[in-house]
Amino acid sequence: MDKTKLGFVGLGGRGRGLLGLLCEMENVQINGICDLRADLLEQGAAIVQEKAGQTVDRYTDFDEMLDKADIQGVVIATSWVSHVKLAIAAMKAGKYAAFEVGGATSLEECWRLVRTREETGVPCMMLENCCYGRTELALLNMIKQDVFGELVHMRGAYGHNLSESLVNRIEVNHYRHHHYHHRNGDNYPTHALGPICNMLGINRGNRLLTLTSVASKARGLHNRAVINKGEQSPEAAWTWNNGDVVSTTITCAHGETICLTLDTCLPRPYSRQLYVQGVHGLYMEDGNQIYLENVSPQYDTWEPFAPYLERYEHPLWKWFQAAGVRGGHGGMDYLVLRSFVESIRDGRDTPIDAYDAAAWMSITCLSEESVALGGHPVAVPDFTNGQWIDRQADPVCRYALDDIYADLF
Amino acid sequence: MDKTKLGFVGLGGRGRGLLGLLCEMENVQINGICDLRADLLEQGAAIVQEKAGQTVDRYTDFDEMLDKADIQGVVIATSWVSHVKLAIAAMKAGKYAAFEVGGATSLEECWRLVRTREETGVPCMMLENCCYGRTELALLNMIKQDVFGELVHMRGAYGHNLSESLVNRIEVNHYRHHHYHHRNGDNYPTHALGPICNMLGINRGNRLLTLTSVASKARGLHNRAVINKGEQSPEAAWTWNNGDVVSTTITCAHGETICLTLDTCLPRPYSRQLYVQGVHGLYMEDGNQIYLENVSPQYDTWEPFAPYLERYEHPLWKWFQAAGVRGGHGGMDYLVLRSFVESIRDGRDTPIDAYDAAAWMSITCLSEESVALGGHPVAVPDFTNGQWIDRQADPVCRYALDDIYADLF
Repeated sequence: MDKTKLGFVGLGGRGRGLLGLLCEMENVQINGICDLRADLLEQGAAIVQEKAGQTVDRYTDFDEMLDKADIQGVVIATSWVSHVKLAIAAMKAGKYAAFEVGGATSLEECWRLVRTREETGVPCMMLENCCYGRTELALLNMIKQDVFGELVHMRGAYGHNLSESLVNRIEVNHYRHHHYHHRNGDNYPTHALGPICNMLGINRGNRLLTLTSVASKARGLHNRAVINKGEQSPEAAWTWNNGDVVSTTITCAHGETICLTLDTCLPRPYSRQLYVQGVHGLYMEDGNQIYLENVSPQYDTWEPFAPYLERYEHPLWKWFQAAGVRGGHGGMDYLVLRSFVESIRDGRDTPIDAYDAAAWMSITCLSEESVALGGHPVAVPDFTNGQWIDRQADPVCRYALDDIYADLF
Repeated sequence: MDKTKLGFVGLGGRGRGLLGLLCEMENVQINGICDLRADLLEQGAAIVQEKAGQTVDRYTDFDEMLDKADIQGVVIATSWVSHVKLAIAAMKAGKYAAFEVGGATSLEECWRLVRTREETGVPCMMLENCCYGRTELALLNMIKQDVFGELVHMRGAYGHNLSESLVNRIEVNHYRHHHYHHRNGDNYPTHALGPICNMLGINRGNRLLTLTSVASKARGLHNRAVINKGEQSPEAAWTWNNGDVVSTTITCAHGETICLTLDTCLPRPYSRQLYVQGVHGLYMEDGNQIYLENVSPQYDTWEPFAPYLERYEHPLWKWFQAAGVRGGHGGMDYLVLRSFVESIRDGRDTPIDAYDAAAWMSITCLSEESVALGGHPVAVPDFTNGQWIDRQADPVCRYALDDIYADLF
């Protein structure tokens, strides 16, 4: 079996985890790693040595890696604002580009991503791991089998208390930190929005149309700084622009609404708050419960989702569990990386493509715009230029881990 | 003990229940009932006879009842659009007015309600029973004791599958029916919003500032008509303007956000989806769970709310349970009516007053405006004309069932 040859850029904490996962894949070979920091390059090389038993070329210049390394694609795990810039450079160099999740700072960078993909013919993929979540894929499977009927309303969130890491700027150098100081909007929409867009067929028969976005006051991070560092600390004097809770409502071409929440500054249990509502019933992540008319035993009463998860287990996850679940975030990281690798191997487009990335990432800068305008509705561009009407549905379902998956249908 | 003398108008299904509850109160005497329909008047008189052991004068003309009946106040349980009109007539006749919940059709009627109350000096009260809910009052109690810290974000809903009654127009003559045909917005915001406004001190140090509102497509009621009546039925040909799920985001003067949902056309478990989030933790009705930093046993992990309900039981509910909970909707109907009766007896303002009613009801017509304008933000008027800054906080907590309650603080 020919191995797929990859470069890797961005060896911060999360990056090293992804690099390690790639090194463990039998069909992957890492032929270059890149970072500005020598110490991280050192750590990255040690990971490749340990996991793959090979030495690897180190680069501090991304363009040099693109130019010199024997690679077919790159995985980009740098900070948010550089994802698109590096992906564009990779595509222009003829390398498949995969990049970690994050939001856009302008519509212009979304358009550039799309235009570069169209002009070069080289695919790129956002590594939205939650699209490969077990529950998310089971729900997608249910939706394809019309269990919920026509979909009407969806909700999702990034509900994750990041306050500890966000106020420890010096120690952790959290790359998100600056965004909370300077910006105000939903800076991290895709964990919830990606799976929802797959369910609604966004860019494949449907599209995101408008959004309104409203931010609460910002109290959580100051409060955390006072608790952790004391009232007289420099951290307690920092100002934070981003509201603690950002509420965004998106409309879709076929009349569905999506409510998104960013909730990362206050103490709270982790939840992506996924909520799927159709004319036959609804699912809710909080409580992990479901109600389906004429199916659930009691009229208009929740029942546990667990039996449905088993019954509607996505074929990909059936295989994954039989083969042994591995990798971070409950296996999602493995599946999303593997899907990228297989796209390169087969010379096909990626299941999450440039149009998806552009639409999903655009929610961040559009949210900022709407918040700044007092919740004024703003339009989500049609990054497909009308292709969404006729594009095929459901790439994740068709193409995830395709070599195994193809046998299952 | 002098009895408080009341008139009652609107003897449809819910009205008769409230009338019966009033008749059972030892300190109330019903001296007039009013309805346009003779059969309902008959039923109302039978209720007064049975529950209070008295005959009662019947009126088909509301003004005539105001003029002739020996009453101090009226309870108005007619259809939504007549609440304000009748309340204004009552105040002008010098009678305290209480009216069932509902939304406004224009800001003008909200202003007229406020102006009439100011000009006549006669109080009026919206009978928002959920303000007296056991959980709602326990949470209010917790907020007053600063358990959640500064509040940041709230959510609530009217999540109630009304599709069966809404498509059975002929049989049930559901008064809400027409609104779903003709209007599009959150037609029933107050069950969630009333308690939230009490918690946030709205009109008492805080106020509602703006909202944006977005409606999903309308599918549920057509779907229900087809299921219940058949595809060829006249009901299946009805068109419905109101979106199945209406999502409204409200901002407050002190930076809090409130997300409201109307969800009444699709199959679903009943839930008001109350969600209270402060800098120290949060409560969620769905799952009836809570997380409080440094209090809950596990970091960022939900725990059951039941022990907190017991620990922070509102004094009013402690008394109510000792005295024996009675009346509809888990006792809330009894408490809200009793509070109105005591306001009359003591010649004081009502705990939910004209400014509250105006602000809460205005959400309906403002939601319609915003939906029609594609989610454009609209301003909530300051119905207090600046008084909100200095008005005293927490009337429900102070004044609910005051004669018993006063001893408890």
